[in-house]
Amino acid sequence: MYRSHSCGELREEHVGKAVTLAGWVQKSRDKGFVVWIDLRDRYGITQLVFDAERTAPELLEKARNLGREFVIQVKGQVIERASKNPNIPTGNIEVLVESIQLLNPSLTPPFTIENDTDGGEDLRMKFRYLDIRRNPVKENLIFRSKVAMAVRTYLSAAGFIEVETPYLIKSTPEGARDFVVPSRMNKGQFYALPQSPQTFKQLLMVGGLDKYFQIVKCFRDEDLRADRQPEFTQIDCEMAFVEQEDILNVFEGLTKHLLQEIKGISIGDFPRMTYDEAMQRYGNDKPDIRFGMEFCPLTPTGGTFGFNIFDSAELVVGISVPGCAHYTRKKIDALIDWVRRPQIGAKGMVWVKYNEDGSLSSSVNKFFDEAGLKAIAKQMEANPGDLMLILAGETHKTRTQLSALRMEMAQQLGLRDPKVFAPLWVVDFPLLELDEETGHYHAMHHPFTSPKPGQLALLDTDPGAVRANAYDLVLNGNEIGGGSIRIHDKQTQSVMFKHLGFTPEEAKAQFGFLMEAFQYGAPPHGGIAFGLDRLVAILGGQETIRDFIAFPKNNSGRDVMIDAPAPIDDEQLKELHLKWDRSTE
Amino acid sequence: MYRSHSCGELREEHVGKAVTLAGWVQKSRDKGFVVWIDLRDRYGITQLVFDAERTAPELLEKARNLGREFVIQVKGQVIERASKNPNIPTGNIEVLVESIQLLNPSLTPPFTIENDTDGGEDLRMKFRYLDIRRNPVKENLIFRSKVAMAVRTYLSAAGFIEVETPYLIKSTPEGARDFVVPSRMNKGQFYALPQSPQTFKQLLMVGGLDKYFQIVKCFRDEDLRADRQPEFTQIDCEMAFVEQEDILNVFEGLTKHLLQEIKGISIGDFPRMTYDEAMQRYGNDKPDIRFGMEFCPLTPTGGTFGFNIFDSAELVVGISVPGCAHYTRKKIDALIDWVRRPQIGAKGMVWVKYNEDGSLSSSVNKFFDEAGLKAIAKQMEANPGDLMLILAGETHKTRTQLSALRMEMAQQLGLRDPKVFAPLWVVDFPLLELDEETGHYHAMHHPFTSPKPGQLALLDTDPGAVRANAYDLVLNGNEIGGGSIRIHDKQTQSVMFKHLGFTPEEAKAQFGFLMEAFQYGAPPHGGIAFGLDRLVAILGGQETIRDFIAFPKNNSGRDVMIDAPAPIDDEQLKELHLKWDRSTE
Repeated sequence: MYRSHSCGELREEHVGKAVTLAGWVQKSRDKGFVVWIDLRDRYGITQLVFDAERTAPELLEKARNLGREFVIQVKGQVIERASKNPNIPTGNIEVLVESIQLLNPSLTPPFTIENDTDGGEDLRMKFRYLDIRRNPVKENLIFRSKVAMAVRTYLSAAGFIEVETPYLIKSTPEGARDFVVPSRMNKGQFYALPQSPQTFKQLLMVGGLDKYFQIVKCFRDEDLRADRQPEFTQIDCEMAFVEQEDILNVFEGLTKHLLQEIKGISIGDFPRMTYDEAMQRYGNDKPDIRFGMEFCPLTPTGGTFGFNIFDSAELVVGISVPGCAHYTRKKIDALIDWVRRPQIGAKGMVWVKYNEDGSLSSSVNKFFDEAGLKAIAKQMEANPGDLMLILAGETHKTRTQLSALRMEMAQQLGLRDPKVFAPLWVVDFPLLELDEETGHYHAMHHPFTSPKPGQLALLDTDPGAVRANAYDLVLNGNEIGGGSIRIHDKQTQSVMFKHLGFTPEEAKAQFGFLMEAFQYGAPPHGGIAFGLDRLVAILGGQETIRDFIAFPKNNSGRDVMIDAPAPIDDEQLKELHLKWDRSTE
Repeated sequence: MYRSHSCGELREEHVGKAVTLAGWVQKSRDKGFVVWIDLRDRYGITQLVFDAERTAPELLEKARNLGREFVIQVKGQVIERASKNPNIPTGNIEVLVESIQLLNPSLTPPFTIENDTDGGEDLRMKFRYLDIRRNPVKENLIFRSKVAMAVRTYLSAAGFIEVETPYLIKSTPEGARDFVVPSRMNKGQFYALPQSPQTFKQLLMVGGLDKYFQIVKCFRDEDLRADRQPEFTQIDCEMAFVEQEDILNVFEGLTKHLLQEIKGISIGDFPRMTYDEAMQRYGNDKPDIRFGMEFCPLTPTGGTFGFNIFDSAELVVGISVPGCAHYTRKKIDALIDWVRRPQIGAKGMVWVKYNEDGSLSSSVNKFFDEAGLKAIAKQMEANPGDLMLILAGETHKTRTQLSALRMEMAQQLGLRDPKVFAPLWVVDFPLLELDEETGHYHAMHHPFTSPKPGQLALLDTDPGAVRANAYDLVLNGNEIGGGSIRIHDKQTQSVMFKHLGFTPEEAKAQFGFLMEAFQYGAPPHGGIAFGLDRLVAILGGQETIRDFIAFPKNNSGRDVMIDAPAPIDDEQLKELHLKWDRSTE
């Protein structure tokens, strides 16, 4: 053992004790007659002291030559510090060093190993092993481990069995693109890496395992958007003989437990909202309900607004931003520019100020007199001091735009407090979603989601109206979990595949095993999956999932530290019976 | 909720209670005026009863028509059984059914869902979801989950952090073949699936995480031998600032904990043995020490045996099999045939019987008189009643052959008791192993293993003699864990790569990131990895790891249930910039 104690362990009660410590040189201060070194390990920092009076000259010299991030082992005695440091747990003591062993020197690190580093993202990713030495990253990884362990402990105690499902499975064209793995032993054939263990967990239910969970890596070969990873981690869960209510209860219990155990926060029963309601009230199926600013649809009092942009719009809807009536013209213009950016795509924005003195002013004074503005303010339940922001246009687009604006205003007003947690169940999702490009419907959740009882026939007449026993758990405006009650009979599954555009042959080739399984006594079942990366980031009060992944990939799917992906030997390619297709060049 | 109680829950205290159960029809007995159904779920079996007296005729009729594996929900009342069944926990009660809801019918299963099934391996694998309904398979999966949870609880309490390392990494030619994953976004490049998280866990130590573990899938594209899987699970661990002794202590602690927690068995300190000693005493680096029959090398008393086969052999070595002197000629001939099989490859076997009456007889009476046989018996410390089996030839081969014979004899004698657990540390492994085909040395453990202090120079003069701080944990003749103290400086790692035949350029291209990391203050570190599949099988008292994997692959690497691997679309291939190489056909 290289140490008797960690660098975070020694206290006043250890004074007088002979100790051996090992760790990294965080920094040293050389005052000529005395040298102090901060020695760091995972557990903390302990101050080492060398001085001309008590330390042998060679040792003092040796201490002087230790650079940042050198790894050393020291033996010495714990002594009380003359000037104590109340900011660190070991601040009352220091170690008077009697010997140093240099375990490994270090080049000068490419960025400082401090809480606030001078290293940019790229550099920190290339030297991720140095980045991990920094407290914020290290603490994030420890936090992630703690969350995962709390999940496992809770679910195990609740009778769930963690079952490992296979990583080398079969490619299916449904959903995102699969990563595929050529088989050397089965020429011309590929495995695929799972986008989720969906079919396997359903088969475990058919197999009678009753309560399953797994914390498991999943893979999607998507063009990466910001903060998406090609490999990501799910808390994947499934239960048999349950209805939606049972799933919501169990996993609300899990989430409450995590908030309590990890954050020390007690939260009562989670509110629930249908998908339709969430879209109407927040323009979003994962609303952030830490703050208000709910949507107010506007209707003309006298049959017409008398304002063409409103009158010709499918939807006129606004939010009332509290306390922002004082916004300057410049600030409001910036907001108008913001909603007009291509990422948001609004054509314009109408604003109405409800001034503190009760007067009203707006960008549409030409079309609305005081009474007209008052009517708007009344519909929007605005109060003096509020700034009303109104968008108009096609329903879905306008809601999406206003939802983005609502989030932006909350951001500006500091209402997205990472220390506040506001969970919400969104339920009754549509079964199908229209792909506007192709005109085809595809499964909103996945093709195994069950339509609400009695709504199967509606698939033929009004597919967009069919609702599913599908639910999302939303936390602070993020979907952290989603699931559904599944189809468990072959007949319904066949109808579903048909509506998703599968021929019977295609359905059989891809999911024949599942439909066959349904014929041998499949129980009713359902489940949920949480995105662990996102969940951990939110619980940690942060936005970026990359900060909670030990070795993340960048937006091109590259690991810049190990430089992967990389070319492979021709020999290796040949063994896989493959060659490069030059026609795609 | 489909049930008020599980099928394993009801006892006499519930008599009189109205309950709702759901599960599978295990079997039914129709005595005309009364029908009994065994209803099964994950938790047990509850007997349902219907009779002409108390049950409505339509319900009785409905019950009669329920087939095996139908999924039903029943409501009824718990009543005391007339004839109790002491063999099951619910045997004192039955449920008098008032209503049945058929949740899903079932085709007749292709094999019986019983503890002893009539289904062959192939059929059971194709319908694995039905196989999992059988108690032995279900219990194995629950057992596995329990072991994994116990590992996590123990290591977490000991301060280990579970960190997820990436699955999409870089291909390295070292070791077995990698599975590779073509990158769509990075044309001409591949990821590889990890054979182990080795380099990443070392980087976590460089990153200061100090104590790491992970239960993680690993992948090897090997030609599969019996009971090998292309994807397998490791308990992967690493610690910083440790010496071999520290690792052995921590993971001996873990193993003791598992034996205690899972099996209720207390085991004292594990014996340790060097690799050389294990080879000498058992001809094997993973000896089964549940029984004796240690190797006795024979040396001629007078300079020569006077028996050419022995005299010309590099090694003459035997085992003394207790109580087998009575073996018939036929039985012994069968053993001779057994060692001569190509899998074993011995040319022949000498046997000497030490009869109960003290007399000796042998297959080499022509060459050894009574005194000669006595001398052999003495050297072998044989006792009356023992059967001595002796092989001769080249040292390594002969040891391997005799080791196989020793295991076979133990098998025949019932000495491989799955309820007895005999762990053993084998230490001081050779650093390198000579590949007899190529004449090159390769790393016995892996290229990151540290030679014993002071032995680096020996690499140039006698590479085979260099020993490593490498260790295996052996349990009942199986290597369940293996690890080493790692190299942590660039210089030593470079020397190591050179000796393994890497050019400096190759070493840099493949492991440059690791060698670079070693330059920034890498701490001394080491670790171990356990094979979870094997560990669970042995703790479960069984031999076949497949029985402890939910969805295993067969010996051709196929999942016969989902029929993977499988061809993919030409479109998909094209997106990956690949085509089939016809020249390999």
